[in-house]
Amino acid sequence: MKDYPIWHPCTQMKDHEKYPLIKIVKGKGVYLYDDKGNSYIDAISSWWVNILGHSNERLNNVLKEQVEKLEHVIFANFVHDPALKLSEKLLKIVPDGLRKIFFADNGSSAIEVAMKMSFAYFKNNGVIKPKFIYLDSGYHGETLGALSVCGEELYAEMYKEIMIENIRVKGPDCYRCPFGKSREECNAECFIYVEEAIKKNKDVVSAVLIEPIVQCAGGFKIYPEIYLKKLRDITRENNIHLIADEIAVGFGRTGKMFACEHAGITPDFMTLSKGITGGYIPLSVVLTTDEVYDAFYSDYCVLKAFLHSHSYTGNPLACSLAVEVLNIFEEENLLEKNKEKYEYLYQKVLEYFSGYKYCGEVRSKGFITAVELVEDRKSKKSFDWKKRVGFQIYRKSLTKGALLRNLGDIIYFMPPYIISFDEIDKLVQIAYESTIEVLGE
Amino acid sequence: MKDYPIWHPCTQMKDHEKYPLIKIVKGKGVYLYDDKGNSYIDAISSWWVNILGHSNERLNNVLKEQVEKLEHVIFANFVHDPALKLSEKLLKIVPDGLRKIFFADNGSSAIEVAMKMSFAYFKNNGVIKPKFIYLDSGYHGETLGALSVCGEELYAEMYKEIMIENIRVKGPDCYRCPFGKSREECNAECFIYVEEAIKKNKDVVSAVLIEPIVQCAGGFKIYPEIYLKKLRDITRENNIHLIADEIAVGFGRTGKMFACEHAGITPDFMTLSKGITGGYIPLSVVLTTDEVYDAFYSDYCVLKAFLHSHSYTGNPLACSLAVEVLNIFEEENLLEKNKEKYEYLYQKVLEYFSGYKYCGEVRSKGFITAVELVEDRKSKKSFDWKKRVGFQIYRKSLTKGALLRNLGDIIYFMPPYIISFDEIDKLVQIAYESTIEVLGE
Ligand SMILES: Cc1ncc(COP(=O)(O)O)c(C=O)c1O
Ligand SMILES: Cc1ncc(COP(=O)(O)O)c(C=O)c1O
Repeated sequence: MKDYPIWHPCTQMKDHEKYPLIKIVKGKGVYLYDDKGNSYIDAISSWWVNILGHSNERLNNVLKEQVEKLEHVIFANFVHDPALKLSEKLLKIVPDGLRKIFFADNGSSAIEVAMKMSFAYFKNNGVIKPKFIYLDSGYHGETLGALSVCGEELYAEMYKEIMIENIRVKGPDCYRCPFGKSREECNAECFIYVEEAIKKNKDVVSAVLIEPIVQCAGGFKIYPEIYLKKLRDITRENNIHLIADEIAVGFGRTGKMFACEHAGITPDFMTLSKGITGGYIPLSVVLTTDEVYDAFYSDYCVLKAFLHSHSYTGNPLACSLAVEVLNIFEEENLLEKNKEKYEYLYQKVLEYFSGYKYCGEVRSKGFITAVELVEDRKSKKSFDWKKRVGFQIYRKSLTKGALLRNLGDIIYFMPPYIISFDEIDKLVQIAYESTIEVLGE
Repeated sequence: MKDYPIWHPCTQMKDHEKYPLIKIVKGKGVYLYDDKGNSYIDAISSWWVNILGHSNERLNNVLKEQVEKLEHVIFANFVHDPALKLSEKLLKIVPDGLRKIFFADNGSSAIEVAMKMSFAYFKNNGVIKPKFIYLDSGYHGETLGALSVCGEELYAEMYKEIMIENIRVKGPDCYRCPFGKSREECNAECFIYVEEAIKKNKDVVSAVLIEPIVQCAGGFKIYPEIYLKKLRDITRENNIHLIADEIAVGFGRTGKMFACEHAGITPDFMTLSKGITGGYIPLSVVLTTDEVYDAFYSDYCVLKAFLHSHSYTGNPLACSLAVEVLNIFEEENLLEKNKEKYEYLYQKVLEYFSGYKYCGEVRSKGFITAVELVEDRKSKKSFDWKKRVGFQIYRKSLTKGALLRNLGDIIYFMPPYIISFDEIDKLVQIAYESTIEVLGE
């Protein structure tokens, strides 16, 4: 791979000496097609962005129309209908109390915006609180600010000398609950860790960052809503912001439009990206409250404004797609429609995997279903990571027509919502067969 | 503005109580059209991104075609023609020795990638060098890593408690040269500042960041190429990387395809964004050398890979636009064609402004021409910033049909390259009339 020009993300390029890159020439619905005539069910919605299928006709049409009107315009002092419509529609459906919308380009940038806004809110009010609390297994992106609140060593450890040190705490870990509880009957006993950290550091902490209900990149850790409720209460009591990162779970992925709804809470900041444009064009937004907005609102010369911008902020092409995504949710009653499908997916996965000797846990929330494979079911001992068990299964599944990117030894299903029951059958079967071929019956 | 939903970038929202937001409904060529029937020459290419005009037919067609094939696919282990073609085309024209291309979404993220790669390169080789050197008036974006190398207080000061402290040095300031030299006859005497910083800190510094030839957001400071040559030499001698941030100046803006060409240098990293897609869709790239790439290339289990990703990395829609932008450069011989136009623009601005009593300096490089207005020509004393002189001129120019966003008290012209000679006439006249109306003859 030494003569190949592209350096791919999150990849050891030497791997490709053995495993050739796959060149995709077409996408349609849940399928991706390569240049050799193979097709793949996109079981991961291309890194969780493509929620409505590839080359979706409605989205294609919107893009074609918008580009004839206005592809882009500077977003300082100027505005346009796609951004106005998106704001109006979005603010109607996000948790009550979120009233302002700030635009950025990708998930990481949205997190940076939320962190900067939170810090500057307190500073504008005369208090300097330079720290953030984050959880083990939390993932919020990889620009250095976002990475400084990443609870995954794999991504963060390498860069610790060039990042601010924030406050990391043990988060929920329901499969291996240290309190011996199950998700159904727990009272979030593990909340004590974050509670302690908050009480100890409340004078220096601006915000706590959390992925509501499911920590995705950190291993699809699904935790009960009581944790989130408690976190909302304690942050409010201690005058600390709550940043709910819905970049992966927003737009229906967990069964509700936004995962915060499971707990009935309103965070101080909510970040959205990925599915927002149906997986077409990068776009992210940060939603916040009037209270936060007001702390920056004053006469120009007081210098309290939030000075942050990206060149492509509020891109009309991206916004017009996002408006159409919301139209589709409404008109097709997607949240309702999805229920039967994701229940079916979960049941299928249980059917195939739950009795399997290397299956540690099958867990599911809405349109996320994950299988954690372990060497020993009883002790829940993981495989030696150097064996790359999950990766082998992923490679195998490609030869059978599914793109099932593993996360360590976790196999997961996050398909576009337009997947059919038949395609679910096929997908789960491929996943199971691939697993068996790699690990044995 | 308290009931308005959108929080605009880089804006004191209270300003809009007095100055209503302008709603743009259409763009075509150099013109933007609002909902009241007004038109505006986009003299700043919508934050320097729109280099080929709004709603460009060729770009529109490419977008429409690409979306029917493949709007997006995960870019880890997968690839597609738009990214391959872009890489091939780009690597042919960037400075010799840049051989690998890494994709991200916006300018800030590209800078974060370059900083992380540089640091990790040394760490993979067993050396920890956690600092970066940057220049006064340098601007590289506003995510926290990029902001930690921002030489503009306006953006950075507020967040200093939540950023790593890097090493800031005096950069070139030719209009107010402390050595009493002019650009034409200097030997970059001011280089001593960065030289000293490098010599003193070479064991802890991974890279120096610089905007080649023109520092844009920091006040359109144009400096001679000798500075860049010296910087390349000294960084090489001291085993420090040079990160050339061409996000604003790349793609022909300074007259050459890339500003590094003025000095005939190859940096270790070059970042590109903005004009890359013709101003349609966010996309950025980081170009680097084989030497850097090789430091990450090894067996998977050695854990040397560059683990950084954004969900939309390598977006095919954006890449296909970028390929077409390069086609247009070639087929229309744009770099050659631009010469006459930007020379004309510069002469026109000189004609109107050079004798004006508040004109400090007219400076120009390629398709960038800037006028720095000062209270006193002789002492070069600036206006009191609270008077917002530049801002008033900007507001005035809007009423006359031009979007001429000021930068402090600097008025600048960075129009799309497709601007006509007549439009240049009109634009400069509007700029001058607006200035006179605000400041008097
Ligand atoms: C929860 C969460 N936050 C933030 C991000 C970062 O978004 P991006 O990859 O667009 O920078 C991701 C991406 O995977 C994510 O899953
Ligand atoms: C030189 C330079 N670097 C980086 C950036 C940041 O790019 P973005 O706004 O896309 O984050 C800019 C944007 O203005 C820039 O001019």
